[in-house]
Amino acid sequence: MAEFVEFLADLRPEVERALDRLLPAESARPARLHAAMRYSVFAGGKRVRPALVVLGGEIYGAPRETLLPAAAAMEMIHTFSLVHDDLPALDDDDLRRGRPTVHKQFDEALAILAGDALLNHALLCLAREPASAPPAVRARAVAVAGESVGSTGMIGGQVADLEAEQRWPDDPAGALEWIHRRKTGCLLEASLVLGGIYAEVSEPEERRLRRLGAALGLLFQIGDDLLDVLGSTEELGKTAGKDAAARKLTYPGLYGVDESRRRLRGVAAEALELACELPRRQDTLRSLIHYLGERDR
Amino acid sequence: MAEFVEFLADLRPEVERALDRLLPAESARPARLHAAMRYSVFAGGKRVRPALVVLGGEIYGAPRETLLPAAAAMEMIHTFSLVHDDLPALDDDDLRRGRPTVHKQFDEALAILAGDALLNHALLCLAREPASAPPAVRARAVAVAGESVGSTGMIGGQVADLEAEQRWPDDPAGALEWIHRRKTGCLLEASLVLGGIYAEVSEPEERRLRRLGAALGLLFQIGDDLLDVLGSTEELGKTAGKDAAARKLTYPGLYGVDESRRRLRGVAAEALELACELPRRQDTLRSLIHYLGERDR
Repeated sequence: MAEFVEFLADLRPEVERALDRLLPAESARPARLHAAMRYSVFAGGKRVRPALVVLGGEIYGAPRETLLPAAAAMEMIHTFSLVHDDLPALDDDDLRRGRPTVHKQFDEALAILAGDALLNHALLCLAREPASAPPAVRARAVAVAGESVGSTGMIGGQVADLEAEQRWPDDPAGALEWIHRRKTGCLLEASLVLGGIYAEVSEPEERRLRRLGAALGLLFQIGDDLLDVLGSTEELGKTAGKDAAARKLTYPGLYGVDESRRRLRGVAAEALELACELPRRQDTLRSLIHYLGERDR
Repeated sequence: MAEFVEFLADLRPEVERALDRLLPAESARPARLHAAMRYSVFAGGKRVRPALVVLGGEIYGAPRETLLPAAAAMEMIHTFSLVHDDLPALDDDDLRRGRPTVHKQFDEALAILAGDALLNHALLCLAREPASAPPAVRARAVAVAGESVGSTGMIGGQVADLEAEQRWPDDPAGALEWIHRRKTGCLLEASLVLGGIYAEVSEPEERRLRRLGAALGLLFQIGDDLLDVLGSTEELGKTAGKDAAARKLTYPGLYGVDESRRRLRGVAAEALELACELPRRQDTLRSLIHYLGERDR
């Protein structure tokens, strides 16, 4: 587990630099919009999605510098989703990572528009950067990212999640899987696949990355659900037990803590098997899987 | 003028078909999200942006079928901007083209997410379609569209407009130009340029399209401002005089109706001159310029 934590710590300054370089300067007009974009992006996230982009690429031998723009772009997309999810009309959260959410720090209109601008800027960066990448790689990168974000991906998952809150679904187990796979899974999966795109992987290699990415997404989500039940507000930087209070669909809510942990271990075992088939970065992947599988301890 | 109106009428069913083909089916899960996306897109817009994409391409000889996906994508982007602009935190509009706005017909959360999904889907379509276009063309199309939407384009213009509403700018004439150029101009300009991208135009040709597109954008905006002052609520499908009531920056508000009309004619003359330099579609362009220059009569 130390290995992935070190990988994340080593990578972090490179990701921050890429984000800083790619985001519009705060001095550029309109300054308040650019300030809001930067406020939300530089809020101390763990940069898990950028790490997955870099891992996905390094597994198949892509040089790191070709991966950093896409790593930054996926973090912008993740940030856009947080800014909009926090809005009063959606999850209505005042705090994010221990700081006021964007609509609290600025205002609601700016939070909506800053979110829009982050999503747009992310896809724009993928279309342009790195300029050295073949245009076919850049066009495909936009497609892979866009599919993961879209109405049948992350945004679709968010809509279904809000619907399940309003009306408890007839098939809660099916709904839980559908929603989690999209709401969190799609973006994590796409991050790993995206890395492979810059290594110009074959179709079977891309499918392998996608299967591993899907397993990582599930690990992440079950772990998050468990953390919400078991963690303290301090550790989370958000209000603990919020999911249960809102009667959201979660693994522990549906299956209990013990069964959720059992599933977490099952998915971790599956992910470890998939990781063994890959040509590089096996140790980092193994350590990542342990990291995701044991976040609730 | 008849010629452009005919061009628009002829093109319309082709644009509607492209939109219908490219948007996710309403039966796809989550159905309510897809219903909201389609409700907002199929609300009877004039499809001016798609017409500009097709014109821009046909000026330089691109076949129409290669232009229709981009035409549809620009309409999705335009629709995204309307859905978000209408939200309570922004312009707070209940009616759009005579029908309830998306957050009124559905709810606010869904309007935010449907707007997000439309923006994302538009850029995704540009990255993928037409599959026959060289990848370099598709990557460049995403870049051209994304630049026009972004924080220094349309979204930046919207933020500056909201700011000007809250605090009257020190340099209202400068602010008016900056905002209008971005809020409406950028997308119209990018639509015309985008068409040229599919014809694989040279840099000087692209610059020519861009200059003409900028003039058309200005024509459109001054005309819109005049319509808001002079038109009736019935003609507009929205509440007339709303801009004046909200003390928004407008041409007639700043320069008066007569001077605004004089400017409109000046920009129209400039646009006509630019249109003369182009190899095809001169009659349609001339008629478009008259159409935009005389909408307030």
